[in-house]
Amino acid sequence: MAGSTFPEGNAVIGQSGGPTAVINQSLVGVVQGLRGVRGVKRILGMRHGVNGLVKDQVVDLGKRAAAALEAVARTPSAALGSSRDKPDRDYCQAILNACEKHKVRWFFYIGGNDSSDTCRIVSDLAREAGYEMRCFHVPKTVDNDLVGNDHTPGYPSAARFVATAFAADNLDNASLPGIKINVVMGRHAGFLTAAAALAREAGPGRRDENGPHLIYLPEVPFDGERFIADVSEVYGRLGRCQVAVSEGIQDARGIPMATTMEAHLKEKDLHGNVQLSGSGVLGDALADLVRKHVRTHSGKPPRVRADTFGYLQRCWPDPSPVDAREARAAGRFAARCAARGEPGGSVALLRTRSRPYGCGFKLVELAAVAAKTRHMPPEFIRGTNDVSKQFLDYVRPLVGGLPRLAKL
Amino acid sequence: MAGSTFPEGNAVIGQSGGPTAVINQSLVGVVQGLRGVRGVKRILGMRHGVNGLVKDQVVDLGKRAAAALEAVARTPSAALGSSRDKPDRDYCQAILNACEKHKVRWFFYIGGNDSSDTCRIVSDLAREAGYEMRCFHVPKTVDNDLVGNDHTPGYPSAARFVATAFAADNLDNASLPGIKINVVMGRHAGFLTAAAALAREAGPGRRDENGPHLIYLPEVPFDGERFIADVSEVYGRLGRCQVAVSEGIQDARGIPMATTMEAHLKEKDLHGNVQLSGSGVLGDALADLVRKHVRTHSGKPPRVRADTFGYLQRCWPDPSPVDAREARAAGRFAARCAARGEPGGSVALLRTRSRPYGCGFKLVELAAVAAKTRHMPPEFIRGTNDVSKQFLDYVRPLVGGLPRLAKL
Repeated sequence: MAGSTFPEGNAVIGQSGGPTAVINQSLVGVVQGLRGVRGVKRILGMRHGVNGLVKDQVVDLGKRAAAALEAVARTPSAALGSSRDKPDRDYCQAILNACEKHKVRWFFYIGGNDSSDTCRIVSDLAREAGYEMRCFHVPKTVDNDLVGNDHTPGYPSAARFVATAFAADNLDNASLPGIKINVVMGRHAGFLTAAAALAREAGPGRRDENGPHLIYLPEVPFDGERFIADVSEVYGRLGRCQVAVSEGIQDARGIPMATTMEAHLKEKDLHGNVQLSGSGVLGDALADLVRKHVRTHSGKPPRVRADTFGYLQRCWPDPSPVDAREARAAGRFAARCAARGEPGGSVALLRTRSRPYGCGFKLVELAAVAAKTRHMPPEFIRGTNDVSKQFLDYVRPLVGGLPRLAKL
Repeated sequence: MAGSTFPEGNAVIGQSGGPTAVINQSLVGVVQGLRGVRGVKRILGMRHGVNGLVKDQVVDLGKRAAAALEAVARTPSAALGSSRDKPDRDYCQAILNACEKHKVRWFFYIGGNDSSDTCRIVSDLAREAGYEMRCFHVPKTVDNDLVGNDHTPGYPSAARFVATAFAADNLDNASLPGIKINVVMGRHAGFLTAAAALAREAGPGRRDENGPHLIYLPEVPFDGERFIADVSEVYGRLGRCQVAVSEGIQDARGIPMATTMEAHLKEKDLHGNVQLSGSGVLGDALADLVRKHVRTHSGKPPRVRADTFGYLQRCWPDPSPVDAREARAAGRFAARCAARGEPGGSVALLRTRSRPYGCGFKLVELAAVAAKTRHMPPEFIRGTNDVSKQFLDYVRPLVGGLPRLAKL
């Protein structure tokens, strides 16, 4: 740490929240960036995030061979293990104690807005205790819901999966026409569901005939009657309809449709949230609604199917090349910030150019990101069931090339 | 048609049943194989299988540019459109009438066992009517359930998706440990669910620790109590458990669990079958069962999630290279059989070598394949919740290379 009186010691890195296809790129980026930095003695990894740290489950990452790290970087999901723990002040005190015990002076946490909040609390506690430690948050979330970021590592790869899935499923739906509902991850923010719209460009037909024909986002209050009218209109016109639905759609009161449409949701996660992923309930309930209220020309219920894409969205091992590169660079940037003596903060991704696409990084205050949720801005949304051209221009360069599809 | 008095005329090709990632390879194979064959005037395509044929919805395929056909061949799902119709004799009479009207002398139908049955009935009716027409069935099904075949085009690509999905999801499950149930297509035959076992080889950990840890096939009567005991044992040992479940699992009486576990299955398809795909009901019901009866060390219900892979299994645009090649070759072989004056039949795939893998084709009687279902043979099944080494040796060469995954 050139020109600094900051004490030397160890660094620790953790991964938190839902894994992504590129979260290991960020892990390897931090490790690579820290190697050879003056003052950094050991590079430790937390097993299962802060949960492992407070239980003394740490591993040494400093001596791994470069080739082994590269192989891990290419592998989806959290190689260190992840955690859903959302620490309060007492828990963060235990984290700080563990850091002191392991002589940690640099704390890196790769995760979403809960993880940046953990960084913030631990950082505050360390300052209050007079323990010199610098906390860096490296962004990660398929939901793309971190404020102050153009986009978040993990999102482009999940968006690539969703767009590819809709493009392929659109052809399946055209082969055997009917109404097909696909439920996409995203509890509060519609970015991932919105990415389905890229499938229209990948599809072989006219863009106004390729699916998805309707897109429902958490940012637009969901109205069952309008949904039925929308589906009926498309089905009457094209003889089929492919629908993208966010798992987080909610009614005008802000109550998730997954809750109101099916009373028997059984599980809440540790944050008190209703479980949305890992269940087909919302898709099945919407399919029922369509079966009851939409009719073919001959008056029969149409063929209706619902798929819930589930966890494959965040772990499919075909990441967006842009995402893989940026996730690595975000980790390296955090390490470089530590090396040049920054007092801590959250790495933010900024778009520096649109055409050709370019992206840069800056360090922002932890408090600016922590525990906040970014939503789809109004200019990305078109009407009540679509996205805008602005959104397509925004998301297109992130996902990489999609499969080329052809028709007769 | 050298050395034959068979009348010249047109050929017609149709695609039927659930699409696959390579069914267009077979379509293009037939078209390529028929070009330049003496006696074949026009090459027609049925829109949406025999449903389009009887409605006079046919297109001319003979004049398509080679590059355009190659692009279609690479595209998943049925480019001509498909059909779920299962024609009876009256319907088949209408098909025969349409063939006579269009001067069809060669009838090619790409599909599963229902499609081979359609070929058989139409062929019989033509013979009875004294109309000279030769009917060829080209095999296609992700279920791999055609008798007399080593395997069926479409299956290897779906198996590749399933194995990749389990390998990636296994890492997700290791990152955030819990019990994860993944429901795989396959109404009566367990081949596709069984392919999940390949994920153990792709995974980075020890093979006996990588998922899937339990595999439930339709061929083995499902017992809820044994299922709970199985999951409890794995969860107690590894702290997590990834489960592969066929959508077609059934109890000892042969009643599908999807029916017995949830009374409110709403829809039957046109064949009178309960709808299994396009719904998350079975996975959700099994997850509920686990939540009620499996406990963590501290006595709490474990984290349980269920995904139903759905239609992406049959349309994901990353086919097995072996499958793409064989599907094309199967179509070409059918056309060559027509060219050399064969009286009709069903193309069967035979494994000619194991190491290195080799595959050949022969023409078998339509009646030998029609409307029959092949199941997993006993030697492919291990106990009540696993597959055998023989099955792994059987399926491994079909799917192509899987992503290389690494751990720390």
